[in-house]
Amino acid sequence: MSYPSDLAASLLQKGIEVGDVIKVVRDDGLVVEGILMPRPKGGRYIVVKLKNGYNVGIDVRRIKELELVAKRKPQRREKGEKPPRRPGYPLVKVLGTGGTIASRIDYETGAVKPAMSTEELVEEVPELLDYADVEAEQIMDVLSENMTPEMWSRVAEAVHAELLREEVAGVVVAHGTDTMVYTASAVAFAIREINKPVVFVGAQRSSDRPSSDATLNLIGATIAAARSDIAESIIAMHGESSDTFVVLHRATRTKKFHSTRRDAFQSICAQPLAYVWPWTGDVEPKSRPLRTRGDWTPKLMNSFEPRVLQLRAYPGMPPDLLYLAKDKGFKGVIIEGTGMGHVPEYLVDAIKELTESGIFVGVTTQCVHGTTNLNVYATGRKMLEAGATPLGDMLTEVATVKLMWALANYPPEEVPKVMVTPLEGELRERRLLRDYRLSYRR
Amino acid sequence: MSYPSDLAASLLQKGIEVGDVIKVVRDDGLVVEGILMPRPKGGRYIVVKLKNGYNVGIDVRRIKELELVAKRKPQRREKGEKPPRRPGYPLVKVLGTGGTIASRIDYETGAVKPAMSTEELVEEVPELLDYADVEAEQIMDVLSENMTPEMWSRVAEAVHAELLREEVAGVVVAHGTDTMVYTASAVAFAIREINKPVVFVGAQRSSDRPSSDATLNLIGATIAAARSDIAESIIAMHGESSDTFVVLHRATRTKKFHSTRRDAFQSICAQPLAYVWPWTGDVEPKSRPLRTRGDWTPKLMNSFEPRVLQLRAYPGMPPDLLYLAKDKGFKGVIIEGTGMGHVPEYLVDAIKELTESGIFVGVTTQCVHGTTNLNVYATGRKMLEAGATPLGDMLTEVATVKLMWALANYPPEEVPKVMVTPLEGELRERRLLRDYRLSYRR
Repeated sequence: MSYPSDLAASLLQKGIEVGDVIKVVRDDGLVVEGILMPRPKGGRYIVVKLKNGYNVGIDVRRIKELELVAKRKPQRREKGEKPPRRPGYPLVKVLGTGGTIASRIDYETGAVKPAMSTEELVEEVPELLDYADVEAEQIMDVLSENMTPEMWSRVAEAVHAELLREEVAGVVVAHGTDTMVYTASAVAFAIREINKPVVFVGAQRSSDRPSSDATLNLIGATIAAARSDIAESIIAMHGESSDTFVVLHRATRTKKFHSTRRDAFQSICAQPLAYVWPWTGDVEPKSRPLRTRGDWTPKLMNSFEPRVLQLRAYPGMPPDLLYLAKDKGFKGVIIEGTGMGHVPEYLVDAIKELTESGIFVGVTTQCVHGTTNLNVYATGRKMLEAGATPLGDMLTEVATVKLMWALANYPPEEVPKVMVTPLEGELRERRLLRDYRLSYRR
Repeated sequence: MSYPSDLAASLLQKGIEVGDVIKVVRDDGLVVEGILMPRPKGGRYIVVKLKNGYNVGIDVRRIKELELVAKRKPQRREKGEKPPRRPGYPLVKVLGTGGTIASRIDYETGAVKPAMSTEELVEEVPELLDYADVEAEQIMDVLSENMTPEMWSRVAEAVHAELLREEVAGVVVAHGTDTMVYTASAVAFAIREINKPVVFVGAQRSSDRPSSDATLNLIGATIAAARSDIAESIIAMHGESSDTFVVLHRATRTKKFHSTRRDAFQSICAQPLAYVWPWTGDVEPKSRPLRTRGDWTPKLMNSFEPRVLQLRAYPGMPPDLLYLAKDKGFKGVIIEGTGMGHVPEYLVDAIKELTESGIFVGVTTQCVHGTTNLNVYATGRKMLEAGATPLGDMLTEVATVKLMWALANYPPEEVPKVMVTPLEGELRERRLLRDYRLSYRR
C-alpha cells in the first residue's frame, strides 16, 4: 500500500501524503501534475492520477523534481466511520463484493487477487465526491468466477436493505466481471419492483494498473446511482476503449463479450439504457427503462435453486449429459440449442424422459442474437412434443438465473409459465433491426 | 413440385413451362417479368424469379394476364446425367448434404423439411451457369442439427475425392446453417493442405420462400469455388440483410450469430476473407488466405473421436458434469470458461482428477471475443496446475471439432501439443483492434 521506505522518507520530508496533489518532473523533462496514488508493495514507480482520470506511473529513479501543489481534501476518514452528509449531495451506497475492481497485483506471485477494501477504493477516486456523498461497505470478497447462487441471495439482501433506506439515492455494487451478468440478473429477479438505480460495476484491469478502467467505471456508476431515473438492475462499464463514457446496460440483456477489452460489455438484442459522461456528470438516455424511481417498497424474493444444469448443444452431444439431470436430482435444465434452439434429434427421447419426471427443460439459442423458434423445423417440433420450453430471446446466462429463481420461489407447476412471462426485460416480443450489428463494414 | 392442375392446364395451353421467362399482370396493374419457378404442393401462388434474384409470389386468382416472353435455355437434363462441358467455363462440384438450402415447406404439416435434391436446386438457379459448369450430387440429406462427427468424416471424404479431380476448380457444399461451422471446421482439419476453394453454403430461409437467401448464397459460393484463389474451407453467406453481396469467412473463425437473419454469419476475432458480388461475379479480397490454389495432393485424415464433452462454466456448475467424463469414458473435455477461461474454483479438483486419468481438458472463453489467459487470476493459475490447457482465441465450436480430430489421429501424448499448434487459422497470436465491433454507435 505504501511506498518503499526510501521514497516514503523523501515524500515525508516534503510533507507529501497519498492523496495530495503533486507535481513531478522526470529526467527527460516530462512534467506531470495530479493526485499521488497509493502503491502496492514492490513497485518502483509512483502513480499519479491525472485530471483526465488516467493514472501515470513514473520510475522513482527518474524523478528530477517533486513538489507539493496542494494537500488533499480533508475527506479521509477512519474505516467504518460514516461520512458527514453534505447538503444537496445525494447519498450513494457502494457495496463491495470483490473482483478486479477491488484487486491489485500481488507482486510476489504476479497474479491479481482481491485485496483492496471498497473504502480504500472510494478513497482512491475522490472524484466520486463531486457527485455524491458515498458510503462504502465490503459485503464479501470473491472473484466473480467463484460467485455462487447462494452468494447472489446475500448480494440481493444487502442491496434490498439499502433500497429501503429513504436517504439512499441509489446503490453501486462493485463486482468481478466474469459472472457480473449472472449476479446482476439475479438481483433483477430477486428484488421485485426495484425502486432506485442498482448499478453493478467492475473493471477489466486492476485498479493499481495505469490502464485500469476502475476509475472511470466507478465514477460512471456513482453518477448513475445518484442521478439517473432508471429503477432497474444495471451494468455500468466502459463505452469504448478510451476513457470517454460509460454505458448503462440492462442487466438481463447484457453479455461480457470480450475477455480482456475495457469495452467488453454489450447490450444484446437491445440498445443500451443510457450513456454516462463521467467528466461532466451527464446521463444521456438511450432507451426506455422498465421503471423509473418511485416510492413503493420493493419486495425481496432472494431464494435460488442451484440444482440447474446449463448445457450447450453440439454435434455428437451424448444423451448422458441430459440423463445426468435425472440421475443426480437436478430440478431444471437450460439447453443452449443450435440455431433456433435445436438439439440433435437423437436427444429428443432424453428430453421427454426429463420433462416426464418433472424436470423443467428450457431452450435458448447459442447464436447469441435472435430468438428461439421450435415450430419451423421437424426437430424443433419433436422437441416441443417432448415437453421442451423455448425461451425466446432470453440470454442463456439470464435463463439459467431465472430458472434457479423460479424453481425456488414458485410451485413446480407454475415454473413453465413464469419462465415465459417477461418480468425484467429478459424476454422480448420484438427486436429492432438496429439491435444487430455486423462485425465488418461494407 | 408442379402447379395445381387447373393452373397447370392454363400454363400448358400457353406453352409455358417452369424455367421459362414469363410476364404477369396482376389485377391491380402490377407487372412482373422473370423466370417461372417450381412450386411445392398446396400453393395458391405462382413464383417468379426477378432479375435481381428475388422471388415474387403472385396469387393465382389475381392474375389478369400471363404471357410467355422466352423459353428457358436448353440446359435441362435428366437426373444423374453429367452436364456437357463448355470451353472456358470452370467446373464446380456441388455436394448436397441437406438443410434449409435444400428445403421447402411441407404444406401438410407447415414445417420445413429437406426435400429438394441438389440437382433440382441447381436447376432452380440458372445464374450459376453464367460462371461455371456445375455438377451436382446429393451425398446425404440431413438437417444440420442432426449432423454427427461420423457424418463429418463422410463429407470430408466426398470433398477430398473432388479435390483430387484435376478438372474440378472448386467444391461447394450445401449444408444446414445450425452446425455448418462444425462441419466446415471438420473439413478444414480432416483434409490436410486443401488445394482449392471448399465453400460451405446454406440458407436461413427455405428456397421456395420469396425471402430466401438460397439463390444469392449459392451463386456467391459457386463464384468463390470457380474464381477465388483461397484454398481453404470457407463459409459463404449473406453479407447484409438485402441481396447485395456474399461474405466468405474462414470456417474456423466463423460463428452463426443470429438465429434467423440472412446475415447471421460473422467472422469472429478476424476479418472476412473476401466479399463476392454475385451480380457481377467479382471476388473482392478482404484478408490474406492461409493458402492459395496449388497443385499438391491434399491428404485425408478424416477420423473423429466423438467421445468429447463440451461444457460451459456457470455459477453453481456441479462437479458432476466434469466427473461424467471420467465415469462414462470420454476422452476429452472442452470447457467454455468465463472471462479469460475460468471455472468456479471448487471445480479445480475435478479437472485435476480428469487430467490425471489422461482426459484432455481444454479451455476456451465464453466471451466469444478475446483470448484465454489463465496466468492473471489465482483461479486460472490453479486450473493450470490441475492440468487444464488454455486454447487462446479458439472458438468453442472449433476447439470441440479439433479435439475430436486430434484424439482420433494422434497418440494421446501428442494431443495437447496439436491442440495449441495453429493449423487452420483457428488459433491466432495477434488480434486486430478492428476485429471487435460494438453493438452500439457512439
